[in-house]
Amino acid sequence: MLVKLNRRTEHFRTVSFDAARNAVLLIEQRLLPHEFRIFRARDFRETARAIRDMVVRGAGAIGATAAYGLAQGVRAFRGSDLRKFPAHVQLVYRTLAAARPTAVDPVNAMNEVLTAMRPGKTVPERQALALASAEEFANEDVRHCEAIGRHGAPLIRNGMKILTHCNAGWLAFVDVGSATGPMYTAQAQGKKFHVFCDETRPRSQGATLTAWELAQQGISHQIIADSAAGHLMQRGKIDLVIVGSDRTLGRTGEVANKIGTYTKAVLAARHDIPFYVAIPLSTIDWNLKSGMNIPIEQRDEHEVLGAWGIRQSQRCYVRVANSSSAALNPGFDVTPAELITGIITPQGIFKPRELLAKRHALQL
Amino acid sequence: MLVKLNRRTEHFRTVSFDAARNAVLLIEQRLLPHEFRIFRARDFRETARAIRDMVVRGAGAIGATAAYGLAQGVRAFRGSDLRKFPAHVQLVYRTLAAARPTAVDPVNAMNEVLTAMRPGKTVPERQALALASAEEFANEDVRHCEAIGRHGAPLIRNGMKILTHCNAGWLAFVDVGSATGPMYTAQAQGKKFHVFCDETRPRSQGATLTAWELAQQGISHQIIADSAAGHLMQRGKIDLVIVGSDRTLGRTGEVANKIGTYTKAVLAARHDIPFYVAIPLSTIDWNLKSGMNIPIEQRDEHEVLGAWGIRQSQRCYVRVANSSSAALNPGFDVTPAELITGIITPQGIFKPRELLAKRHALQL
Repeated sequence: MLVKLNRRTEHFRTVSFDAARNAVLLIEQRLLPHEFRIFRARDFRETARAIRDMVVRGAGAIGATAAYGLAQGVRAFRGSDLRKFPAHVQLVYRTLAAARPTAVDPVNAMNEVLTAMRPGKTVPERQALALASAEEFANEDVRHCEAIGRHGAPLIRNGMKILTHCNAGWLAFVDVGSATGPMYTAQAQGKKFHVFCDETRPRSQGATLTAWELAQQGISHQIIADSAAGHLMQRGKIDLVIVGSDRTLGRTGEVANKIGTYTKAVLAARHDIPFYVAIPLSTIDWNLKSGMNIPIEQRDEHEVLGAWGIRQSQRCYVRVANSSSAALNPGFDVTPAELITGIITPQGIFKPRELLAKRHALQL
Repeated sequence: MLVKLNRRTEHFRTVSFDAARNAVLLIEQRLLPHEFRIFRARDFRETARAIRDMVVRGAGAIGATAAYGLAQGVRAFRGSDLRKFPAHVQLVYRTLAAARPTAVDPVNAMNEVLTAMRPGKTVPERQALALASAEEFANEDVRHCEAIGRHGAPLIRNGMKILTHCNAGWLAFVDVGSATGPMYTAQAQGKKFHVFCDETRPRSQGATLTAWELAQQGISHQIIADSAAGHLMQRGKIDLVIVGSDRTLGRTGEVANKIGTYTKAVLAARHDIPFYVAIPLSTIDWNLKSGMNIPIEQRDEHEVLGAWGIRQSQRCYVRVANSSSAALNPGFDVTPAELITGIITPQGIFKPRELLAKRHALQL
């Protein structure tokens, strides 16, 4: 999407590939929103480190990064010996898979690349197929977000005030984003609307990433404390909620997403405000039978005990709480189907409990 | 209450008076939780500045500070000329009242002192009556919080997990606190329980003040992000909610309190968790007929756009959000009576809609 640089506005993807230099290019998300920089991963080990160190984050974005990283590693193979080639591919694959061991997207993405390489009869053929497949993976991620945008945009009417939580924007994907997809399409259709970004403590992805994205795109927005949405709903100031999802249960329609999502769904239901979840197909889990079985990551307490920001142009962490108090920091929560008005997918909008019946259309 | 110093634990009041030196002593709240220091206001102008600059905050605490400040100013009058005395008293009164012009507690507290002084026939008599009245005001604040504690403590059972929001603790009063009153009484009764402190963005009073208080008292507690309470309730991890109130409508039972209180009440109702509000009588407003008429202070957006904390022993503000995004920062919200299980007052626990019928007992 668009990024405002000093004197111009340019289009960037969160993840892209420089074929001439065999480099993976990533928007350096650890520096946002205070500095915009492109991180160049010059070999597959650097790409794996970039995933591990969260230069890039978000399901779609790390999937595409791993796909490109695999192609990058494969293309670095010297010689034409097809007997030595598989061991090298395995090394690259394992290095990238180990970067975020609990994430499923990098592995799924790399499996697609491996499958696409198979018909190649020579090393150069397989190398070319790997890159073509990674490019196709990234392009498909964009097309899926654009489709989410097309299906979701009619929900946004002129003058609406929309609430979103955390970042399910283009920084979490190759481009466009899931929860932001309908907003960008509606904007392109000439609609005017306002977005409230929950700051999304403790890591503040709403304040740092979503608000930055919307500022780049020129969409009217304000950051609010996570506690403020209930009051705004009570006073009639929110018309629509759109959030993303880390995992959606295909069997029950339950949605696991960033901590605080459930609270917003409860508030929206009380105030009869439509609550939508926008998801790429890769986040649907067809196996789990109950949201209570979704493991909830307990994250480091220092995220809650302090904050990261910028001071005198220096990025730093400040401790907010007293040194003798501890924190509890669940990273995600689960929203039941009954609180969700609809799930916006690349294939259309469905009621959460309809997903299972539509499985044939929604399976990757 | 208790404060852990280097080698010992001492008892402090948030506000007290050094009669020998005619000084108001305040726990310097701007340094908490990173440093504990007593601020000595050596004349009434310093006391007024301390109120204005928020060395001390919280309804009960600033009321007592103003009462002591008036006595302090009155005691500084030199001579015995009863004709010149009233002009001096007026100067002191106006200086202190102007420190927090929208707050009602300092004015109410000083009016009590003025009334008490009236029978004095000489300047020294009036000065003595002023101090005695200020001391009585402070002692009554403590007795009221202790009574809230006695009435509320039976709600707390062994092993309970209690949620509180913001700081309605002893730092907001002369001692003991309102929402914390029942906890301290229950602790004295030997009950074991655990408190979750909402961090209470944007000013983080839960993380900085309430957690610090509980740490001093040795009460088991953890800080959580404001977004985490819904998830904890869903998983059965919260048994009781107790919060304070900035203004309670005697006619309707509606409660205005720190932004985020309403959200916690909505969540508690969904999960059938008792939701109590602990209030001193001074916060009851018998005039307003609807919570929608309570003015909601819109606070500075920088509170939401960044955070205050400590780094390398230096207190500082860091900017979290990007420089091109703005914030909306409502400071309070209103919780309707239907979501409140009971209001804990110094006179007992009442249903919110019973307050009006009990007006004779609840009026100051």
